[in-house]
Amino acid sequence: MPPSLAITPQPAGRLEYRVFRSVNTRWEDNDSYGHVNNVVYFSWFDTAVNAYLMERGVLDIHGGPIIGLVVENHCNYFRPLAFPQTVEIGLRVEHIGRRSVRYGLAVFGPDQDAAQTAVAQGHFVHVYVDAESRQPCALPPSWRTILEHLQ
Amino acid sequence: MPPSLAITPQPAGRLEYRVFRSVNTRWEDNDSYGHVNNVVYFSWFDTAVNAYLMERGVLDIHGGPIIGLVVENHCNYFRPLAFPQTVEIGLRVEHIGRRSVRYGLAVFGPDQDAAQTAVAQGHFVHVYVDAESRQPCALPPSWRTILEHLQ
Amino acid sequence: MPPSLAITPQPAGRLEYRVFRSVNTRWEDNDSYGHVNNVVYFSWFDTAVNAYLMERGVLDIHGGPIIGLVVENHCNYFRPLAFPQTVEIGLRVEHIGRRSVRYGLAVFGPDQDAAQTAVAQGHFVHVYVDAESRQPCALPPSWRTILEHLQ
Amino acid sequence: MPPSLAITPQPAGRLEYRVFRSVNTRWEDNDSYGHVNNVVYFSWFDTAVNAYLMERGVLDIHGGPIIGLVVENHCNYFRPLAFPQTVEIGLRVEHIGRRSVRYGLAVFGPDQDAAQTAVAQGHFVHVYVDAESRQPCALPPSWRTILEHLQ
Repeated sequence: MPPSLAITPQPAGRLEYRVFRSVNTRWEDNDSYGHVNNVVYFSWFDTAVNAYLMERGVLDIHGGPIIGLVVENHCNYFRPLAFPQTVEIGLRVEHIGRRSVRYGLAVFGPDQDAAQTAVAQGHFVHVYVDAESRQPCALPPSWRTILEHLQ
Repeated sequence: MPPSLAITPQPAGRLEYRVFRSVNTRWEDNDSYGHVNNVVYFSWFDTAVNAYLMERGVLDIHGGPIIGLVVENHCNYFRPLAFPQTVEIGLRVEHIGRRSVRYGLAVFGPDQDAAQTAVAQGHFVHVYVDAESRQPCALPPSWRTILEHLQ
Repeated sequence: MPPSLAITPQPAGRLEYRVFRSVNTRWEDNDSYGHVNNVVYFSWFDTAVNAYLMERGVLDIHGGPIIGLVVENHCNYFRPLAFPQTVEIGLRVEHIGRRSVRYGLAVFGPDQDAAQTAVAQGHFVHVYVDAESRQPCALPPSWRTILEHLQ
Repeated sequence: MPPSLAITPQPAGRLEYRVFRSVNTRWEDNDSYGHVNNVVYFSWFDTAVNAYLMERGVLDIHGGPIIGLVVENHCNYFRPLAFPQTVEIGLRVEHIGRRSVRYGLAVFGPDQDAAQTAVAQGHFVHVYVDAESRQPCALPPSWRTILEHLQ
């Protein structure tokens, strides 16, 4: 059976995400077709997850003992966006493993209507590793507490 | 059932891809952890597919009647890369629909050993649309011929 | 005489700029040294100028008759920045020619203290051209009015 | 006297640069106007300088004692470029100070005709600092030898 193109997920609603982060688009986000390039959405996903972890005090990218490396990511795109729009990135935690976490992410327009559906949505999986050895390590309890708020 | 983290695909070999495109890394591809950021891989995927279509004469991004929009993409990462390495992007076509195509992509190191496995691999789905109306349109025969070479 | 390294400008103050645009940093803005890469500042300059022109209704990048092309840009860097900081881009017009404009730009930290000095500052020169022929054209009166507000 | 727009430099020739580095453009380098965005040229400049220093064995971005920070950069743009063109970055050293270096950089098309002039040209100034303290430090003799080859 060939890979099917038909199982595109339905756009999620705002209520399916736990926290939101506002992101302003940049001139260079638009590509030759005048819309935000697909690559940029993954940059927003990275930004939303890492900023959340840094601002809650668990991730310290300069000197902390544990960092998260992306081992899988995915996105589906439903409608286009264009600079200079502002967007909001919705974030939730879909699975907490012993050494890895699956985050669910979605992009919403600036209108904060609760009935609004996602412009794009996807996920990424972080494996947490020792910052020096880069070997996988168990998530500390402080991280679990922060992450459970997003489930 | 929670989303599983266990079904990570196995790294593909070079022989599973049809054409290769060399890409040189850039200083800014490295992120705070000193390795190429996950976002950059999607930029390479876009580059490999669009360059192939442009160089075979079917895609004209400035004045052509049909353009491809990404509606889904995905990547799994197996090993890190770092600037100033050069990499090769392997490309194949996994499915040709009436108005859409699923491309398989993989990143290989500069060593062209046929036994080499992918550093990362994924896919993206292009829906082809009229360049003006942005409505989906059937793939012309000239495009199909070019794409069938990659199956 | 060799090019001198000594004539670095002094950091400007917030009062020397006319309008400000808030920009949030992204994970990928940080480079291998853990600070925002110099390239990113120019992306912010592009963003501040084009967003100003679009939001005042003179620049329409999709169908308007006139677009601006950068023919020169420059930046001096005084202090580092790092994700996830938010910054403000200060904008002023330094010269309005018949077909070109020189914009002055500076990056400030999120603290809106009027005594704050720039983290980095520079300029860029836009030449305005016909969107189709890409030949230089005279700035229309509507553009001049908008631009004079920034002098 | 207002800042003059008239002192644009003349495009340099290939013979005015000492070493060249080939760079392939990427889909995302093109902006809404269908040409490579000005920001991307600075990414190529960073790439050319750092790759040269790394490949000659003086710069080690992961564990070396000295790193270079950009304190000034500048570019003039003469002709547009577009993906999927390949370009060459010409590099020379314009000044070696006690703790800083001014690099001259230019972008050339893929045609290696010696009479070819630059598509864009500029410079950047690196200040060399201790990788830990980030305080400026004197250039070691090994760096000077490598850099003098580019004068």
